[in-house]
Amino acid sequence: MKHKTVGIIGGMGPDATVDLFQKIIRATPASTDQEHLRILIDNNPAIPDRTKAILYGGKSPLSMLSDTARNLEAAGAQLLVMPCNTAHYYHSLIQQSVHIPLLHMMRETGKAIQTRYPTVKTVGLLATEGTVQSKLYHNALEALGICVLVPDGVHQRILTEAIYGEDGIKAGQRMGPAVRVKRAASYLIELGSELIIAGCTEIPLVLRDGDCAVPVLDPTQVLAEAAVREAMTESMQSGD
Amino acid sequence: MKHKTVGIIGGMGPDATVDLFQKIIRATPASTDQEHLRILIDNNPAIPDRTKAILYGGKSPLSMLSDTARNLEAAGAQLLVMPCNTAHYYHSLIQQSVHIPLLHMMRETGKAIQTRYPTVKTVGLLATEGTVQSKLYHNALEALGICVLVPDGVHQRILTEAIYGEDGIKAGQRMGPAVRVKRAASYLIELGSELIIAGCTEIPLVLRDGDCAVPVLDPTQVLAEAAVREAMTESMQSGD
Repeated sequence: MKHKTVGIIGGMGPDATVDLFQKIIRATPASTDQEHLRILIDNNPAIPDRTKAILYGGKSPLSMLSDTARNLEAAGAQLLVMPCNTAHYYHSLIQQSVHIPLLHMMRETGKAIQTRYPTVKTVGLLATEGTVQSKLYHNALEALGICVLVPDGVHQRILTEAIYGEDGIKAGQRMGPAVRVKRAASYLIELGSELIIAGCTEIPLVLRDGDCAVPVLDPTQVLAEAAVREAMTESMQSGD
Repeated sequence: MKHKTVGIIGGMGPDATVDLFQKIIRATPASTDQEHLRILIDNNPAIPDRTKAILYGGKSPLSMLSDTARNLEAAGAQLLVMPCNTAHYYHSLIQQSVHIPLLHMMRETGKAIQTRYPTVKTVGLLATEGTVQSKLYHNALEALGICVLVPDGVHQRILTEAIYGEDGIKAGQRMGPAVRVKRAASYLIELGSELIIAGCTEIPLVLRDGDCAVPVLDPTQVLAEAAVREAMTESMQSGD
């Protein structure tokens, strides 16, 4: 049995990279080391901040994202994943820089909602301003007939603070940010969300399914399962 | 500030690789993504079992270990670490296959004991049979005047089962293996161990400092701190 080698374009942030790595391992049907997938990770935290680049004219992360993707391909990756929602703004350009598929987190999330929650038509999105304003989830989900609600200015600022603040998730904190993330989720549920998308890879670190009155979907988990599926499907198709 | 890129020869097992990755991130003084280290990981679980090779004539992991080390060097790693105690049996041969330093887990552990527990002269070793019989810790610690105690046959079998068994740590279990690992630790403490070395990278996943009557030292944590120290020291020496 020969499976595809998975490459992770990581470092955005490092904790989210650990989280995806762990979720891929847990999603793999294996009881010995040797049954697990080969996974290559380039945890490259020097990649400039995506939200700053998209919204505030900060340094573009594109060349470094493409370099990291090419580095993983050269090292042997046959399939790429990127545990950063906002970086998917550059998905098609990164995809053009390599010869192997780069899975798309929002499209995989759309498929997962259709399959697991077929009656859900309105979802609430917790994400960075970069992800929200670049309409990454809107584009993927509205094409499937799913309406996306986002926080108002006040709640978006609370969420941004929970992710990027001095006592935020990217600074290694958990308890304080969890309270702020839940406030933003409650607001979206009051607006009519039937499901919450934890749409920034830092958010599942503090908000889990069961924490809210409606289901919480973790796109990192969805992406992990998609990576395992794609890595293993290939081998069955090729008959290895 | 230019730090060295750390390469992790991983997959032995995948959970231990996640554990070292996370410990390096936590040991790094950083409050934004961009302040973290670049880390390349080749999680290559196809590497044959080290204990089987050393003790029972199983397939040698050496060529795959060296290939993985070279792959990481080619991808940009400037410093290597290997979160598998038993694989250190091949340390000098892997080191010869690359031009960058491969840190040595047992030697780093010896330095850590001398620095943090200067009065300790007898330690108990919880490790795979491959690590125990190849005297990896004995060689590194006895050179520093530290005596190493190991479990008797019965307790070593309990420990082996906790690591490799169907309901063991490598199969993703935690509660059952934790009980077995603590039994082996208690035996070593009764024999006179003043400190327990969690000397297989799976063991710190179920046994932590504070769980025993004596300190528990986690060589994965020691290795993580050594990797951060070496990655950051270089930049200060080179004046970047």
